[in-house]
Amino acid sequence: MRGLLVGRFQPFHNGHLNVVLSIMKEVDELIIVVGSAEKSHSLDNPFTAGERILMISKTLRKYNFPFYVIPIKDIEFNSLWVSYVESLTPKFDVVYSGNPLVRVLFKERNYKVKRPQMFNRKELSGEEIRRRMLSGEPWENLVPKEVAEVIEEIDGVNRLRSLLESDKL
Amino acid sequence: MRGLLVGRFQPFHNGHLNVVLSIMKEVDELIIVVGSAEKSHSLDNPFTAGERILMISKTLRKYNFPFYVIPIKDIEFNSLWVSYVESLTPKFDVVYSGNPLVRVLFKERNYKVKRPQMFNRKELSGEEIRRRMLSGEPWENLVPKEVAEVIEEIDGVNRLRSLLESDKL
Amino acid sequence: MRGLLVGRFQPFHNGHLNVVLSIMKEVDELIIVVGSAEKSHSLDNPFTAGERILMISKTLRKYNFPFYVIPIKDIEFNSLWVSYVESLTPKFDVVYSGNPLVRVLFKERNYKVKRPQMFNRKELSGEEIRRRMLSGEPWENLVPKEVAEVIEEIDGVNRLRSLLESDKL
Amino acid sequence: MRGLLVGRFQPFHNGHLNVVLSIMKEVDELIIVVGSAEKSHSLDNPFTAGERILMISKTLRKYNFPFYVIPIKDIEFNSLWVSYVESLTPKFDVVYSGNPLVRVLFKERNYKVKRPQMFNRKELSGEEIRRRMLSGEPWENLVPKEVAEVIEEIDGVNRLRSLLESDKL
Amino acid sequence: MRGLLVGRFQPFHNGHLNVVLSIMKEVDELIIVVGSAEKSHSLDNPFTAGERILMISKTLRKYNFPFYVIPIKDIEFNSLWVSYVESLTPKFDVVYSGNPLVRVLFKERNYKVKRPQMFNRKELSGEEIRRRMLSGEPWENLVPKEVAEVIEEIDGVNRLRSLLESDKL
Amino acid sequence: MRGLLVGRFQPFHNGHLNVVLSIMKEVDELIIVVGSAEKSHSLDNPFTAGERILMISKTLRKYNFPFYVIPIKDIEFNSLWVSYVESLTPKFDVVYSGNPLVRVLFKERNYKVKRPQMFNRKELSGEEIRRRMLSGEPWENLVPKEVAEVIEEIDGVNRLRSLLESDKL
Repeated sequence: MRGLLVGRFQPFHNGHLNVVLSIMKEVDELIIVVGSAEKSHSLDNPFTAGERILMISKTLRKYNFPFYVIPIKDIEFNSLWVSYVESLTPKFDVVYSGNPLVRVLFKERNYKVKRPQMFNRKELSGEEIRRRMLSGEPWENLVPKEVAEVIEEIDGVNRLRSLLESDKL
Repeated sequence: MRGLLVGRFQPFHNGHLNVVLSIMKEVDELIIVVGSAEKSHSLDNPFTAGERILMISKTLRKYNFPFYVIPIKDIEFNSLWVSYVESLTPKFDVVYSGNPLVRVLFKERNYKVKRPQMFNRKELSGEEIRRRMLSGEPWENLVPKEVAEVIEEIDGVNRLRSLLESDKL
Repeated sequence: MRGLLVGRFQPFHNGHLNVVLSIMKEVDELIIVVGSAEKSHSLDNPFTAGERILMISKTLRKYNFPFYVIPIKDIEFNSLWVSYVESLTPKFDVVYSGNPLVRVLFKERNYKVKRPQMFNRKELSGEEIRRRMLSGEPWENLVPKEVAEVIEEIDGVNRLRSLLESDKL
Repeated sequence: MRGLLVGRFQPFHNGHLNVVLSIMKEVDELIIVVGSAEKSHSLDNPFTAGERILMISKTLRKYNFPFYVIPIKDIEFNSLWVSYVESLTPKFDVVYSGNPLVRVLFKERNYKVKRPQMFNRKELSGEEIRRRMLSGEPWENLVPKEVAEVIEEIDGVNRLRSLLESDKL
Repeated sequence: MRGLLVGRFQPFHNGHLNVVLSIMKEVDELIIVVGSAEKSHSLDNPFTAGERILMISKTLRKYNFPFYVIPIKDIEFNSLWVSYVESLTPKFDVVYSGNPLVRVLFKERNYKVKRPQMFNRKELSGEEIRRRMLSGEPWENLVPKEVAEVIEEIDGVNRLRSLLESDKL
Repeated sequence: MRGLLVGRFQPFHNGHLNVVLSIMKEVDELIIVVGSAEKSHSLDNPFTAGERILMISKTLRKYNFPFYVIPIKDIEFNSLWVSYVESLTPKFDVVYSGNPLVRVLFKERNYKVKRPQMFNRKELSGEEIRRRMLSGEPWENLVPKEVAEVIEEIDGVNRLRSLLESDKL
């Protein structure tokens, strides 16, 4: 059985990792869709799809579990979206998502849909991690160490901070 | 003379029907543009273009008046939009719209533009009808019975409610 | 039962009309998809979607049969196309098409697909009619009289001829 | 040395002109990118790219300095944007922008980036000028006289005001 | 009076220059549309829009005549194209084009359209010049010297030749 | 060091596998770009991106070498393409491609580019394999056994054959 997990992963954090580890017990292979693949260099979406693919792949490789990481851009056409995902991924049997829109769309296409359990949402959220990066608080403990390495390598925290101050022409 | 009426029709309600019936007295044929055709499955735009076309066509057929229902997606390029509408519709002589942007765009292209009179805007609005669907209040009396049938057939109220609660990854 | 017929209709001719009349005996309502809706003003696709919608609607209205005419543009993404058509049309049960790609795509999505019988393909084809328009031979007898009227109204034969000679910069 | 200046220029005002005149002392040629080229006929972006190109060109011609004015539309894909600008413009050596996102994107591509000094930001801003147009206050003194002429020629103030009142269907 | 000239300018050659010089006698300002702006690095379209803008601007500057050079990409939607050009250019009164499609499209929108006279089409054509570049024959005498300089600066002949041999995976 | 290999992989065959195995000796990680990701269900491009990703991943997993398989659609804008690839992939140091356009584009962006050696091009080519599928000749020996399994599972040969005969409306 193959599962599909959808997220933006800005960045991939320990909450995501827990979800992945728990899904791994239910399926034989896992497809991870990196959503909003076209978004980067903004306060809500600082990292490119390529950078997020790197974070996820580096983290998961040690678990010796077959996974696929596939970037998928927003298409602003909800009723097309399931078909869009299907055409870019291997066939899958069950969809995991915390997003009600994603769940509705796949349910209407007759997919089995599950809501992954998330723990400690206050700390383990992309929003909180980006907030800490901006304010200079520690965030590295909230992400896998491979993710922290990727972010350091691309100087990600400085990218985020440089986006902050605005003085448009 | 052929008229053009532009709307999103989320859903098509009695206010829209009144406008259509009143325009029918002024023109020989009516083109109804279903705008934001790519939008569906969101709180503001729950229904697909196909579903909205069905609502409108089923309602209007009994009036024995020549009409066209044409889906047109947003193009995010205002100065192209009139040309876009023109290329997808039969020629028309007069444009009816309550939206000032639509009126400005067609006026600058030298169309005759009219503002349809709307009654009872408090109840007869898509926003109010969607609010009632979400809160469980009666809404069926605000739409033609053919529209209520279509919405029931596609289980539209449940779709809307499923979109409400959010817990993004 | 609702049927779906896909074509480019450049222009809508008596062969198309025969197919439509024969499908009308098998379904309760018919959706006619005007494909390649974005194409016009070329030797293979001289007429806009709006002009083709007018040809079809004017011809079919006298048959007093419920039909929908919906323009759909090419999306250059075959595996998305069925979903694209579904989102812009009312639900349908059976698909009629002479195009093998269309038949494959709908079959893979579990639709019932039929191949309409075409008669006199040598004369009743868009290609032959456009050829006659260019060469000055009679073509009006190959299309419904409403179609001939539309083409005359838009000066369609002259448009086609003006596209012929080329002297690019 | 060739410089690149990015802005929306809704409209081109004396603040922009000051920046241009000051950059002219540092470079041999100047490329002016008219951003959000697809946007017009909205309260924030009333003028088309063509109208903005006209404003800028008419104003700058008297300075006898080599410049290029190039419309570039938003592509909603930040990490592609520098490459997009590069493909539509002559090669450039230094980028001037008050927008932190633009500065980050070009810096990551190893461009020299400068922040132009802006004076009297309270009055010399597109937002303030559009506000005055809407409220009927004088604005002509805040823009070059060529810009005021273009806006008068296209009846720009009336366009802006017509967009204000809304009564959507 | 403002004229509009449409071409791909791959590259801008003496035939184009002659046309421009002859149009300059008929209009007060000239807009030059660099078509297929998104195309480059192919045998038929080797140069980017930015490179073509540079060729044209450098060549024309010495004539001290007001001109605009504006890149416009193909939109594969003929009936939208005039509107697309209008939105990205200052208003114009007369259109010059050797391309029958361009002439038909502008004529249907009620523009005055003229066909520029071309001399020595056998040598003065982009196709011939690109053929000579590939085969190592002299081509520099067929283009303005500014154009030859730009092509040398970007190592354009080598780019063209590198595109020739194919061995696809 | 990370390498990047670009192909359409319609289907992934033993020639591709040989190239991959030989690149594995030169790099530490390999990114495989599945090009023309939007293409499927045509005679030249029968398989979806998802199906091709499955073929490649299933084949390569046994080699215990870190690889990424990333679908990238055509963007018809050559000078943007390198940037597009960069934004969707982890950083890479060397590019392998048999396609001269791909090599030119990456070279102009200062990448190290290598041309992989291909053996037995007459048999080991996607074109030849698709021809054999259509004509009923044996093809399974030309692809890894995992690829043959995927093609059987999706009934790929029948899909290809169904696309052959044409009788367009």
